[in-house]
Amino acid sequence: MSELQGYHVAVMGATGAVGQQIIKKLEERNFPIHKLTLLSSARSAGKQITFKGENITVEEAKPDSFNGVDIALFSAGGSISEIFAPEAVKRGAIVIDNTSAFRMQADVPLVVPEVNEDALHNHNGIIANPNCSTIQMVAALKPIKEAFGLNKVVVSTYQAVSGAGAAAINELHEQTEAIISKKDFTPEILPVGSAEKHYQIAFNAIPQIDKFTDNGFTFEEMKMINETKKILGMSDLKVAATCVRLPVVTGHSESVYIETEQANVQVDDIKKVLAKAPGVTLQDDPSNQVYPMPAMAVGKDDVFVGRIRKDLDEATGFHFWVVSDNLLKGAALNTIQIAESLIKLGLVTNK
Amino acid sequence: MSELQGYHVAVMGATGAVGQQIIKKLEERNFPIHKLTLLSSARSAGKQITFKGENITVEEAKPDSFNGVDIALFSAGGSISEIFAPEAVKRGAIVIDNTSAFRMQADVPLVVPEVNEDALHNHNGIIANPNCSTIQMVAALKPIKEAFGLNKVVVSTYQAVSGAGAAAINELHEQTEAIISKKDFTPEILPVGSAEKHYQIAFNAIPQIDKFTDNGFTFEEMKMINETKKILGMSDLKVAATCVRLPVVTGHSESVYIETEQANVQVDDIKKVLAKAPGVTLQDDPSNQVYPMPAMAVGKDDVFVGRIRKDLDEATGFHFWVVSDNLLKGAALNTIQIAESLIKLGLVTNK
Repeated sequence: MSELQGYHVAVMGATGAVGQQIIKKLEERNFPIHKLTLLSSARSAGKQITFKGENITVEEAKPDSFNGVDIALFSAGGSISEIFAPEAVKRGAIVIDNTSAFRMQADVPLVVPEVNEDALHNHNGIIANPNCSTIQMVAALKPIKEAFGLNKVVVSTYQAVSGAGAAAINELHEQTEAIISKKDFTPEILPVGSAEKHYQIAFNAIPQIDKFTDNGFTFEEMKMINETKKILGMSDLKVAATCVRLPVVTGHSESVYIETEQANVQVDDIKKVLAKAPGVTLQDDPSNQVYPMPAMAVGKDDVFVGRIRKDLDEATGFHFWVVSDNLLKGAALNTIQIAESLIKLGLVTNK
Repeated sequence: MSELQGYHVAVMGATGAVGQQIIKKLEERNFPIHKLTLLSSARSAGKQITFKGENITVEEAKPDSFNGVDIALFSAGGSISEIFAPEAVKRGAIVIDNTSAFRMQADVPLVVPEVNEDALHNHNGIIANPNCSTIQMVAALKPIKEAFGLNKVVVSTYQAVSGAGAAAINELHEQTEAIISKKDFTPEILPVGSAEKHYQIAFNAIPQIDKFTDNGFTFEEMKMINETKKILGMSDLKVAATCVRLPVVTGHSESVYIETEQANVQVDDIKKVLAKAPGVTLQDDPSNQVYPMPAMAVGKDDVFVGRIRKDLDEATGFHFWVVSDNLLKGAALNTIQIAESLIKLGLVTNK
């Protein structure tokens, strides 16, 4: 078949929070598809999902499910990717993986198309989609780095529960209702489903996302640190992160402090490069109370940046506030943008 | 009357969120009182408040309300303090003011008793209680500064709505209920009652507390910057703040990045000095998921510190997470602790 007719695309984890957004975005962006295979665990198999007016039955994923697949979009957890991504590659598919399973492997490109599309040329079958909180930050950091150099990044995050999946969204809703109606509740999911202790998320802030590593940082924080260095190609960049879960359904926010390489950079210089940056929308007008907020970023594709200020004491220091829909640019959209870049660069062929 | 019998204490703003906590804490701590005068605006005057089993009628504040008052605790907004604090001082009272009206005046001590009690000796009738978000941070910074020196502080806050008063608490509750029951609502208070635009706070994060200054920082952020320098007595300390309002009722959290003066400081060194610091409770055991959270700090007097980590790239850099009840240590408790310090230091006499 010709390229115009499109590709055989598989979505692994089709019934999850991100999987559903991927299917929606494939339709919305009119991605060139001639066949769509929807895969899940045995538990969710059999469900019907509508794509462009057609009902598609979700199938239980097996290695042979990837026969004939050109592009496989994975979003079903790291352990599923570890098992099935190599099977898909073996069968000739290019895998774009939304989990952390392969992100730090040297031979796996970790890509935000607006930031490091060129890295795609070095793929060996698997391309990793970065962590949601990393994607939105590097989208803002890249143009600043290009224009003024970058020495240091210190980020504190304000992350939505949808980053922890559909069960976490339900937990926030149920806890909120329980507290408002003065009923008892037992936290069962957050901060991490697999952790020993669970804490109230409604009307609270939990300074733990993912489990802890031995150095006192969480895995989420280490992802932001390591992925930022890899995507920006700056192994010596100073990066630190504190990741916090909030009672917000969707939309991650980040308070970012940076130090530029160049001296004498002004706020207007930063605004100018961000205003022109692909995928970034500047929302920065304090006198009219214009700044990004998660409730207003939901459902939007862009990374929103505002509250840009020059540090009052550190000559090269700047502060800003970055917000994006963690399920879209932070996950589903970036995944599909990677696939679109692969097509544009001639790196994927339909069989 | 003798000192043992206590003082004539006035509470200005007795019906407000902080005023009520002040009255509760005066009773709880058995503050030496022989007469308690409760004052408010004309609108709230006439209300009855119970103190140690006795009903006290709230009176409309007038200059002569302070006749005979030894200690006046102000918590009714900056413009009220500007009018009435000088009147109270004129009549021989020592004023402890919870607003920002006098904090940066050179002849007004700005005091957190655990941090800079000695500054009280220089008072001229008015003593300022720092901003809630400043108090909890300097309680953690002081012992670190003393032990290892301090060069830089970058803080991102996660602040509760009760810092914006009782109306903001109601707004969060009403919006939350409206969203859960899919009803319309109109934001009317947050981020700032007097601002032109108001935004949803339920399930959102608003990167604005108080109004904006000309340099792009908000007044809240400038308070944290300037007050921290004044309280620590370090005019050349590099301090920056980003202040964010969250859908949390009570309990401010802060993600703090610091650089110490000394090199070779280790996490255990920081933990040791914080474990011994007055008013500070260390809650830092990642392997058992022990860290501070606002929902667990409500109603407690202490400043809770956890998530202490050494920066992985900056030799003198450290990160930690500070949580405290913004109505208690952040306001009412610190106010009363200042009064207790004044008594201890012999700086207040009863008439």
